[in-house]
Amino acid sequence: MIKTLQLLMDELEKLPGVGPKWARRFALYILTAPAEEVVRLAKSIVYARKKIRECPICGGWTEERICSICTDETRDRSKICVVEDPLDVLTIEKTKVYNGLYHVLGGLISPSKGVGPEELRIRELLKRITPDIQEIILALNPNSEGEATASFLTELLAGKIKVTRIAYGLPIGGDIDYADDMTLKHAFAGRWEVKK
Amino acid sequence: MIKTLQLLMDELEKLPGVGPKWARRFALYILTAPAEEVVRLAKSIVYARKKIRECPICGGWTEERICSICTDETRDRSKICVVEDPLDVLTIEKTKVYNGLYHVLGGLISPSKGVGPEELRIRELLKRITPDIQEIILALNPNSEGEATASFLTELLAGKIKVTRIAYGLPIGGDIDYADDMTLKHAFAGRWEVKK
Repeated sequence: MIKTLQLLMDELEKLPGVGPKWARRFALYILTAPAEEVVRLAKSIVYARKKIRECPICGGWTEERICSICTDETRDRSKICVVEDPLDVLTIEKTKVYNGLYHVLGGLISPSKGVGPEELRIRELLKRITPDIQEIILALNPNSEGEATASFLTELLAGKIKVTRIAYGLPIGGDIDYADDMTLKHAFAGRWEVKK
Repeated sequence: MIKTLQLLMDELEKLPGVGPKWARRFALYILTAPAEEVVRLAKSIVYARKKIRECPICGGWTEERICSICTDETRDRSKICVVEDPLDVLTIEKTKVYNGLYHVLGGLISPSKGVGPEELRIRELLKRITPDIQEIILALNPNSEGEATASFLTELLAGKIKVTRIAYGLPIGGDIDYADDMTLKHAFAGRWEVKK
């Protein structure tokens, strides 16, 4: 095997969900596509990694100091939608069904992966719950980690603020990133208040 | 949507078989993995594209002027295995079942894609058929394009040299119930006598 190619394949296989067969397909593209295309791909990877950072308020992605959602005065600043990662923000934004603020946890509670509440941006969430905030919407993936995180947050926030969860329009075992617009729309419309 | 991220996703979606959902997963990796990892990925892409070129003899990939297979005097130089693309060479090499030479066509005949014999490295193959060559092995994918190409080459080389094709049939570990008609057809046509 050519060494340079092996190095490329090794790097490609680090991409999530990419095994040897996909790495081969990608390598074939990289070695046969026009050189400008390939350079553009590589540059966009480095550039995105360099330019895009975490918004210090919500934890979402931004090219500015503070993200365009946190600074947008026309949004409903009485609601915070809690999500796992920045991609969830983009997915929900695309549907245009929600006009409030966001809070990215940066993960979910997972004892098996050694992720506890202190690893997540929960302290930052608590700091954001001022008297202006009227509702915390939990939009977490419907799996055991999402459930554990939702339970933890519900208990933590009980009596302090109204906590709702988006409806189980999402298929169990699914992923918010993979939900279609209609499913997400129904999930938002059918959200219910969590009571202890 | 953040512009830099959109640009990244657009580039990622150009990879073969990658749609918006995979582009998102890759983007999440690129924006959250350690920066060194991401830079290494981008560099390996550019470096591989720059370093690896086509061997002028067989059309396979090489970092040298001529590839290590074409220059290897210990290989069986009486056989040429004809394949579609350079990845096929690597796949077959990994199995260690073949010790001859290769010839990469750079595609398959496909009227629907406008690829005719003159677009492939067939002239180069003919030039390589010296009196030393005793067998041309066609190892093309078992689909309509592979069949068309195999038929064309068989006709072209008829009477000039021995042409063989690798066997098609049930994959080892496969299941007859799940085999498609064409595979079963090939499996029956290629049946061999069991001798005790």
